[in-house]
Amino acid sequence: MTQPLSCTQAPKPREIAASLDQSTLDIHDTLLALRNGQTSLAEIREQCTAIAQSDACRHVYMPGSAPDFSQAPALGTSDYHAHAPLAGLPVSVKDLFDVAGQTTRAGSTVLAHRVPAVADCAAVARLRAAGAAIAGRTNMVEFAFSGVGINPHYGTPVNPADQLVERIPGGSSSGAAVSVATGAALAGLGSDTGGSLRIPAALCGLVGFKSTARLVPASGVVPLSTSLDTVGAITRSVRDAITLHEVLAGQKVPLTGKPLFSLRLAICTTMMQDGLDGTVAAAFGHALDTLRQAGAAIEELAVPELGDLTAINATGGLSSAESYAWHRTLIDQHRSAYDPRVALRILRGASMSAADYIDLLAARKTWIVRMQARLAGFDAVLAPTVPLVAPPIASVLHDDAEFFRVNGLMLRNTSAVNMLDGCGISIPCHSPGQLPVGLMLWHGALQDDALLNAALVVESALTASRAA
Amino acid sequence: MTQPLSCTQAPKPREIAASLDQSTLDIHDTLLALRNGQTSLAEIREQCTAIAQSDACRHVYMPGSAPDFSQAPALGTSDYHAHAPLAGLPVSVKDLFDVAGQTTRAGSTVLAHRVPAVADCAAVARLRAAGAAIAGRTNMVEFAFSGVGINPHYGTPVNPADQLVERIPGGSSSGAAVSVATGAALAGLGSDTGGSLRIPAALCGLVGFKSTARLVPASGVVPLSTSLDTVGAITRSVRDAITLHEVLAGQKVPLTGKPLFSLRLAICTTMMQDGLDGTVAAAFGHALDTLRQAGAAIEELAVPELGDLTAINATGGLSSAESYAWHRTLIDQHRSAYDPRVALRILRGASMSAADYIDLLAARKTWIVRMQARLAGFDAVLAPTVPLVAPPIASVLHDDAEFFRVNGLMLRNTSAVNMLDGCGISIPCHSPGQLPVGLMLWHGALQDDALLNAALVVESALTASRAA
Repeated sequence: MTQPLSCTQAPKPREIAASLDQSTLDIHDTLLALRNGQTSLAEIREQCTAIAQSDACRHVYMPGSAPDFSQAPALGTSDYHAHAPLAGLPVSVKDLFDVAGQTTRAGSTVLAHRVPAVADCAAVARLRAAGAAIAGRTNMVEFAFSGVGINPHYGTPVNPADQLVERIPGGSSSGAAVSVATGAALAGLGSDTGGSLRIPAALCGLVGFKSTARLVPASGVVPLSTSLDTVGAITRSVRDAITLHEVLAGQKVPLTGKPLFSLRLAICTTMMQDGLDGTVAAAFGHALDTLRQAGAAIEELAVPELGDLTAINATGGLSSAESYAWHRTLIDQHRSAYDPRVALRILRGASMSAADYIDLLAARKTWIVRMQARLAGFDAVLAPTVPLVAPPIASVLHDDAEFFRVNGLMLRNTSAVNMLDGCGISIPCHSPGQLPVGLMLWHGALQDDALLNAALVVESALTASRAA
Repeated sequence: MTQPLSCTQAPKPREIAASLDQSTLDIHDTLLALRNGQTSLAEIREQCTAIAQSDACRHVYMPGSAPDFSQAPALGTSDYHAHAPLAGLPVSVKDLFDVAGQTTRAGSTVLAHRVPAVADCAAVARLRAAGAAIAGRTNMVEFAFSGVGINPHYGTPVNPADQLVERIPGGSSSGAAVSVATGAALAGLGSDTGGSLRIPAALCGLVGFKSTARLVPASGVVPLSTSLDTVGAITRSVRDAITLHEVLAGQKVPLTGKPLFSLRLAICTTMMQDGLDGTVAAAFGHALDTLRQAGAAIEELAVPELGDLTAINATGGLSSAESYAWHRTLIDQHRSAYDPRVALRILRGASMSAADYIDLLAARKTWIVRMQARLAGFDAVLAPTVPLVAPPIASVLHDDAEFFRVNGLMLRNTSAVNMLDGCGISIPCHSPGQLPVGLMLWHGALQDDALLNAALVVESALTASRAA
């Protein structure tokens, strides 16, 4: 195992004050500031570049892949800004996605010698077509395994939420989240197989939206689990999540304007509220109070089907089987170059039989039908995205048992939504001064538009309460 | 292995002269005759019952499951006939489908002790809703494996095309085809995983249509391969195939009226014309001549992708893996009760790994994309459905090597269409007095409507030539 590059160094207070304003503006406010002449695209890009080069973005980018806008589209001369929804703004790209001329390493060393991609993958092509300036190639958990965010080869991006203790960023889209949280990008392209967008969004105080997988093309993306992989983005607001989703899915999200009081919301009383740490429990409880005070009808909903997931996945799970199918030649040849914690889970797939896999697919299908019946009639289900706040990097870096315990908790709530083939969005719900906590709204397949509309009004109520 | 009940008995000349007229009328002509008062539904049902009880239908029905119309809907009092497309006519049901109150045995003995189905499966429910009178439960190849049509437990239905030599009916929907060919039913509900509708249709001189699998629900049907299984019917004409497909798929097939000369047809020059026996070669060649004389534009089309199927299926194929997943507990407990030829192929799935299966699914997906590119622009591709006429039952009954050789040839052309997730229809193309030969029109997924329209005009040209 390659030694971590610097995660074990003592935490240093980071000074990114210059970026704080930038890091609070979402794409929509930035566009407003641009239109009002309060800033310029050149200034924004300079600022992003400076943040990306600062210590706050240590380990956020793959080597040699920090933001470089010299190749970005020329600015200012056309109506480019007005018509392209991303209007030249910096969007980072996780190292899982093919970008023309770059080598896709998926956070590993074993793919480092691959030839550069000849073309942008579909998601990157759509971002560019929408005006995005690609702002660096972000580090990630090797091959997108695990929700913690540690990478032993390229270092672990540090969660910017705590200036004193170096905490995990969450994974696997670790660099993506930190690039957005620090202000080095206005959105981060990532992927979510078990929570890899929503977990780092929750731990870093951002919005992470996992759409119904089929809505965004995954071609040109290194797969983890072809059944579960979802392409999406981490953003600073729900409205930005909608914009990014519209760009990536190539279709508009109709805004319904449905007020909070007209929604039928549920809190999931099975499993998803188990073992919350104090901060998460308090923030989640406070969020529910706030929503109720704002007029939301929230019912308790037992979802006993969630208790079946352990048995359904007992033979190894989709990620192990499907990743082993993709990796088997590579891992036979380069076993020692894999993060042992990643290799362990990939190799679990080697022993699964076709019949077990077929049974697993069938069991998932039946389970989805039962789950959809359970969720019918609700606009969204609420749960804490992750039951813990981000633990210190040091607590999981060298302790395998603690790592796997934490990883299991990180993925527990979010991964159920992937099994459901559903959609889920994590919204910050912590109070100022607290470590970030995510509130997840989730539902079944193709409920994306209703979920995003619900998320808009939920976010609005939480923000109003925070401001009050 | 249970001894075959009577397939080895010397062939007897069968006398079904009374049914010959009946067996040439399709549903549409029968409805016309009903409307014109030339026959009555009671008479039709009596005739079907008599044929079903005759020696021609030996082994066609599961024990105790010959047609019994005492439970069929009452006739004549309402506008039932006019509005239900199947208008009370007898339709047989393969022993693979759940019918309320009956035990689904799938041609096996191991399921004989199951409790009767509590409800009709979706396909049977749709038939009933369309007015069909369920006309017996037809025998089949055990668990729908193989295209030959032999069943060692319940006997092998005899192909009615040859009055002198007992020939195989083709499988797996063997009883379905014989019930329709003899006149014991006007259509036969069956299934097609590798050709199980089209092969017996071809060998018995009928029409067999395998739609794009997703169009007809397969719930309540014992599965062979969940990736490939298709529910459909054997009929006496293309127009009846359209009617049955409309009923089973629950949607109309728009009739385009496109004339033959406006179609772009291809003959597949790769693999599908290899090793034709003399009768098939002559009939196929004659059919092409007839179509060309009738104005059809027919191009030769090499489909080199067909050559990749052997490699794609080298690890065992979808049917083995998926049937093993379904059978594994059952076959562990009742191994000796399975037809050894069926057990052999199910158990081949036991050694397939999840990774091999996942690779197979991925390879199939890529192959389908390449195939669809190859077929683009054509209205239909032509090929002999089966390269051989029906061999004598005696030639394959006890000779495993010959059985597997014949089986491979039976399935070769048709099964490629299942791998394609496509649609295919077999139409009789032999001359009067010859053993039946099927002409298959095929195409990719969801080309069903265009294919059926092409089949209508192709059938019409072939029929006109035969009458001339």
